[in-house]
Amino acid sequence: MENLREASNKLKLLSTNQKNKALVEIRNAIIENTEEILEANMQDLEAGVHLKMKGSLLDRLTLTHKRLNALAESIDDVIDLKDPVGVYLSGQTMPNGMQIVRRSVPMGVIAIIYEARPNVTIDATILAIKSGNAILLRGSSSALNSNIALVKAIKQGLAKSDVPVDAVMLIEDNDRDVVKQIITANEYIDLVIPRGGAELINMVVENATVPTIETGVGNCHLYVDKDANLGMALDLLQNGKLQRPSVCNALETLLLHKDVADSFLHKMYFKLRGCLEFRGCERTAKIIDVTIATDEDYATEFLDYVIAIKIVDDIDEAIKHIQKYSSNHSECIVTDNLTSANKFVDSIDSSCVYINASTRFTDGGEFGFGAEMGISTQKMQVRGPVGLEHLVSYKYIITGTGQIRE
Amino acid sequence: MENLREASNKLKLLSTNQKNKALVEIRNAIIENTEEILEANMQDLEAGVHLKMKGSLLDRLTLTHKRLNALAESIDDVIDLKDPVGVYLSGQTMPNGMQIVRRSVPMGVIAIIYEARPNVTIDATILAIKSGNAILLRGSSSALNSNIALVKAIKQGLAKSDVPVDAVMLIEDNDRDVVKQIITANEYIDLVIPRGGAELINMVVENATVPTIETGVGNCHLYVDKDANLGMALDLLQNGKLQRPSVCNALETLLLHKDVADSFLHKMYFKLRGCLEFRGCERTAKIIDVTIATDEDYATEFLDYVIAIKIVDDIDEAIKHIQKYSSNHSECIVTDNLTSANKFVDSIDSSCVYINASTRFTDGGEFGFGAEMGISTQKMQVRGPVGLEHLVSYKYIITGTGQIRE
Repeated sequence: MENLREASNKLKLLSTNQKNKALVEIRNAIIENTEEILEANMQDLEAGVHLKMKGSLLDRLTLTHKRLNALAESIDDVIDLKDPVGVYLSGQTMPNGMQIVRRSVPMGVIAIIYEARPNVTIDATILAIKSGNAILLRGSSSALNSNIALVKAIKQGLAKSDVPVDAVMLIEDNDRDVVKQIITANEYIDLVIPRGGAELINMVVENATVPTIETGVGNCHLYVDKDANLGMALDLLQNGKLQRPSVCNALETLLLHKDVADSFLHKMYFKLRGCLEFRGCERTAKIIDVTIATDEDYATEFLDYVIAIKIVDDIDEAIKHIQKYSSNHSECIVTDNLTSANKFVDSIDSSCVYINASTRFTDGGEFGFGAEMGISTQKMQVRGPVGLEHLVSYKYIITGTGQIRE
Repeated sequence: MENLREASNKLKLLSTNQKNKALVEIRNAIIENTEEILEANMQDLEAGVHLKMKGSLLDRLTLTHKRLNALAESIDDVIDLKDPVGVYLSGQTMPNGMQIVRRSVPMGVIAIIYEARPNVTIDATILAIKSGNAILLRGSSSALNSNIALVKAIKQGLAKSDVPVDAVMLIEDNDRDVVKQIITANEYIDLVIPRGGAELINMVVENATVPTIETGVGNCHLYVDKDANLGMALDLLQNGKLQRPSVCNALETLLLHKDVADSFLHKMYFKLRGCLEFRGCERTAKIIDVTIATDEDYATEFLDYVIAIKIVDDIDEAIKHIQKYSSNHSECIVTDNLTSANKFVDSIDSSCVYINASTRFTDGGEFGFGAEMGISTQKMQVRGPVGLEHLVSYKYIITGTGQIRE
């Protein structure tokens, strides 16, 4: 990991033009190595099929000509983004004549620990280099062949640029202990981003001494207020729950104001009973056919065609429920009442709070950030989609003419 | 700690006027309780004398009428500062008509673990309340009586305001295990700020699962370049090392370009030999009378009348030395050469990088932030002095008319 630190010390001194040149070379190398990358990906897919990996996981693991081209194109988008490094964030001349400016700088070395999605290998590398950071990649063993082929192409591209080849490092060792080494290597790593399920995130948070950005666990809620447009509420439920249930911004719990519960539940049952499993509170069970929901159901990120339902007496009970169970990712209120909307926004302590819009919009692309490193559910440094501008720190530069403190 | 979370949920909804009213009441209560606070402080001081506490520590522990008045006045300064909460940081209307705004919000509950300085009890409480955060105070056992009296006054003030009395909590239990409980209480604490020596900071970083802001360890360097004004360099050394050796922004190591070493060392020796212990490299030892410095000396934050000295061949060697030993707090180059100054600023990865000015300026007050929570030496969230504006996070608020993701 010493090589990474050294590479980072060189990389942080490069200009935007030099970094963009490296990104162009990476894009070209990926296109040139398409066949080799797809072959390696095929090995991973065959092993995945053999291991009876779930369809949705196999889909995420799959690279195709079309997907690789789209990834290469997304590199062009990052090239077009403004360099987040070297920005003068503030500055002043002090009464003694000393000048203090605050300038954005790279974090240094970023480590990302992620699931079997080869596209993350490219996204993370591109974002890191553009923001002047060296990157340590630790992907899933089930995508190892794909990642090796991708990183080979990336390094081939870097070799034609001023960015040191050592600025990108792939950990091929599958041992879990390697992750523990990474997340405690404070001397060599400045930031760890775990990206994956709750188990991985918790393991990292519990064991890391390197600062981390927690990402991705989304126990998201939809609260249908007494003054809601119920047709809109049903559309938002359907979009939030069913469009892509396996992602972190999908809905997991539906909270219903008691005054609209009866009407909404009948509409919902009629429309969605064929494609969704309902787990509801006792009051819900009196209205439609549901399995009784447990506390654990309310705490679970199903990532599946299942929704937990609870009828509440008022907005305060809805807020209390969310405060108790939420992972602080994304929550939505459906209402036409301004007082309720404001109360919900002010009280809910989540990265993204929605009024009358789908939680599925919590995404770097949808927010206009370009590619993203994940969705932060913590409060330090960055909340919500983690884009280019969140991968930097800053330093104060103080220029004087011999000023001393009295 | 549940009470703190509940208090935080109420406090975060209060207006600037309501929070400022609470600060006024705290100031008044401290003035009204002056005698009781000073008596409690006297008990701590007597115990400290009995335990043969160092003079500099006793000085930090001491409260007087004058110091308490100054503290009360500093509350007025914080009242005058702009509320960091509720600021609209950015916002846009998306192509589908959905509006995304980013608004600053309190962190929630902040815990501070600190040394025997009763003024920190007031500073930390005031900054926390102004930024809408509840605060858990865990001071040193040797300041316990003072802290109990101060927090009693603070709560007396809060009782006359809209800020819940439970928003401030003092841990009176001296057990070290309590610290471990605090720094792993992710459900109740959003941010931990350890403030003290390297041992405390390391313990917190190694064991915390709650996000932390590392503060205060300062192994600060002064590099005298070949193109330095040597008179200025000597002034900066004297100010940085001798004005207040026990603080984190004091100098610990002097690096000298070989071309100026001879001349500078003689000047320095003549002026400071009576009040400073020199530990130098072999080359230094050939010029002036020093103890030979070890690697450990270069790594040590002496906080005392001792300085480590090393002669380097060029600026690159100076930069490498700092990269190896620095705690990333504050470093200074003395030079009249623009290329050297820029190289130093770009290469050194510290919170505050000085050109021709004393490292002693790294301080919230000197930077114009008012009171501070400490000096951050990490890269996430905040670097350098931690003031009011660094104690907040943000949330995205997305307002729509039923938009769903295609």
